[in-house]
Amino acid sequence: MTEELIQKGKLAKEAAHFLSFVETTEKNRFLLGLSAALLEKIPEILTENEKDIQIAKAKGMNANLLDRLRLTPARIEAIAEGVRQTSQLPDPIGEVLQMWKNEVGLQIGKQRVPLGVIGMIYEARPNVTIDAAALCLKSGNAVILRGGSDAFYSNLALTKLVQATLKAYQFPIGCVQLIEDTSRETVLALMKLNRYLDVLIPRGGAQLIQSVLNHATVPVIETGTGNCHVYVDQHADLEMAEKIIINGKCSRPSVCNATEKVLVHEKIAKDFLPLLEKSLQQEQVEIRGDERALTYLQQGKLATEEDWQTEYLGPIIAIKVVADSDEAIAHIHQYGTKHSEAIVTKDYGESRKFHRQVDAAAVYVNASTRFTDGFEFGFGAEIGISTQKLHVRGPIGLNELTSTKYIIFGEGQIRE
Amino acid sequence: MTEELIQKGKLAKEAAHFLSFVETTEKNRFLLGLSAALLEKIPEILTENEKDIQIAKAKGMNANLLDRLRLTPARIEAIAEGVRQTSQLPDPIGEVLQMWKNEVGLQIGKQRVPLGVIGMIYEARPNVTIDAAALCLKSGNAVILRGGSDAFYSNLALTKLVQATLKAYQFPIGCVQLIEDTSRETVLALMKLNRYLDVLIPRGGAQLIQSVLNHATVPVIETGTGNCHVYVDQHADLEMAEKIIINGKCSRPSVCNATEKVLVHEKIAKDFLPLLEKSLQQEQVEIRGDERALTYLQQGKLATEEDWQTEYLGPIIAIKVVADSDEAIAHIHQYGTKHSEAIVTKDYGESRKFHRQVDAAAVYVNASTRFTDGFEFGFGAEIGISTQKLHVRGPIGLNELTSTKYIIFGEGQIRE
Repeated sequence: MTEELIQKGKLAKEAAHFLSFVETTEKNRFLLGLSAALLEKIPEILTENEKDIQIAKAKGMNANLLDRLRLTPARIEAIAEGVRQTSQLPDPIGEVLQMWKNEVGLQIGKQRVPLGVIGMIYEARPNVTIDAAALCLKSGNAVILRGGSDAFYSNLALTKLVQATLKAYQFPIGCVQLIEDTSRETVLALMKLNRYLDVLIPRGGAQLIQSVLNHATVPVIETGTGNCHVYVDQHADLEMAEKIIINGKCSRPSVCNATEKVLVHEKIAKDFLPLLEKSLQQEQVEIRGDERALTYLQQGKLATEEDWQTEYLGPIIAIKVVADSDEAIAHIHQYGTKHSEAIVTKDYGESRKFHRQVDAAAVYVNASTRFTDGFEFGFGAEIGISTQKLHVRGPIGLNELTSTKYIIFGEGQIRE
Repeated sequence: MTEELIQKGKLAKEAAHFLSFVETTEKNRFLLGLSAALLEKIPEILTENEKDIQIAKAKGMNANLLDRLRLTPARIEAIAEGVRQTSQLPDPIGEVLQMWKNEVGLQIGKQRVPLGVIGMIYEARPNVTIDAAALCLKSGNAVILRGGSDAFYSNLALTKLVQATLKAYQFPIGCVQLIEDTSRETVLALMKLNRYLDVLIPRGGAQLIQSVLNHATVPVIETGTGNCHVYVDQHADLEMAEKIIINGKCSRPSVCNATEKVLVHEKIAKDFLPLLEKSLQQEQVEIRGDERALTYLQQGKLATEEDWQTEYLGPIIAIKVVADSDEAIAHIHQYGTKHSEAIVTKDYGESRKFHRQVDAAAVYVNASTRFTDGFEFGFGAEIGISTQKLHVRGPIGLNELTSTKYIIFGEGQIRE
């Protein structure tokens, strides 16, 4: 284990103890200070970001990744605005979720407390550095950040700014720290840093997340891939179905809540698929279909087994004709990633069945899968979408970054 | 990966799908059937248990472990009664914890669903086989059991009884299965069976739990060790403090919520320690103390660094004199295992401070640490005490064996 990890782990643990009972007004004052500091230091941040951009260009990084890496004045303003909004969200810490008396008169309360120290492992997206710092601090957690090496200078500049603001507001710098050693050994050691970390949150592509799942001994909140389906029932409003699929696929194809697959009831395939094909073609979406779907489509190539498993994250969609909702649900059960699944139907019984039988973080009737998002759900912010079943499923907002403890009030009770 | 694991994993996954929407009455009918079957088959179960006992005796197993392994008619009756009581507990599945409308009129509900497939890894305590089967099934989860090899014949007999009852009530046998291969390779493979398992719950000693934490890639609910402290404040009712400590230490020394350490404010040490010593001696508890504590005690040897770290699980207690609650809280922060911690005080401010600053699953004012238990908390049953911060902290009852999904009701909403 590297010296840097041990040293930062210790500072984080001390800072987490401090943060666990610091008052809300203090946390909010810091966040407003950080928001202002970001706006003030835009030129300095851009200078450091430009170093990363130049190195990435020299390495031949593709345009999509370069775009995620790049900061602009408008983007920094948006990040600062996010921090300001976080200061306005309710503080989850201290809330007593339930309180009751037991049989011998103990009053038992279940109270929200911070998780402690969170490790964030992410790719070359500098905005995550500030988003994670703000959300972790507001929820009373210390955070150790390990961003992608391609964003090294940007992350360093942003973390220094955060730490200067921490000092200015009398918070320990252990509240937010960046691992500067971006070697593979160090990130592997971070995944096993149980002595100092309470939870790891990986954010990024499937490969990053799989690596964390394989190597971590620290408990992980898995943020997941989304192979999301829309099932168009025989009793669907076809126009509604078309709008929901186009929105699901096209409004932002690169995100995990985008619709990747369409399952169509055989009784309406003949009417629906030509309608859908026309809209998809207008949006320049490539269509793949099973044999039956292709008989109703003018273009489109045959979908393979791999297609049903793939999260395209781009302008491709695969369509399958199914005999009924049983087949649709079985297909989702087999190929879905338990992220977001939708049915379009006017039938009450089919809507109930879909809600009951489909196992996913978010199960929709007559709405776009794109709504699976902390902001859309009304959580005010999010740090990712969890597709695991332990601790949190769906958007990870401030409440989801907390644990609980039982606080018990007695008058000398002893157990029989 | 062994054939047995793959085959049982598949059956468990299918059974979990079935269990996720089977009705409460069906589950309760099965549980009552199982309770009756246990009572009916007492002689057969005892015969198989006797085989384990004979093998264990030949191996020289110690009396304490032998006692945990042994079944008697009374113990089987108690297990059957536990199953019957589980049938009477409220079914957590289907409960909608919150429901709200978002800004575009989507109605979003957060509904309890089962975790899926639970892997239980435990030692040679045959009662766990039935307790775990009943609680997992009631909460809609399939379970794969891997009990200690010393209880092989008992576990096999009990699992066969469960599976016969499953068949009789038209439940798939994949609901409750036992891994019959008790080799180390197989248990290691079980810990990495992410394809079929949603969560692992180890139950047993520190060594078993550490092994699972080190090797598992499946998410783990850690059931923990308890190095529990009672801090006796200068404003304590000394008689109450004495009762709370004697109850905490002596009512059942072998369990994780037993009191292991006493911290005494220096201003009352002189009055309190002789009183406490007398009671501890009556209960034949060995006393260890720091230098200051020993000056007030007639007997007792000097506590070492190791003592402060140790969960004795037996008739030993260690006592330290502290300057104030800050020193007590710092000591708990350094040596506690975040299980159960108590203060005895009449002072309002000290009670508030202890509740706020001590980080543990259960933080008591003026009550025995022995209350940290699913039955005492009113949960009706429990499968262990979690000392981790993710997913569940404290007693693991039926609610804690669930996850959630968002069910969303729309009228064609798409995202802007």
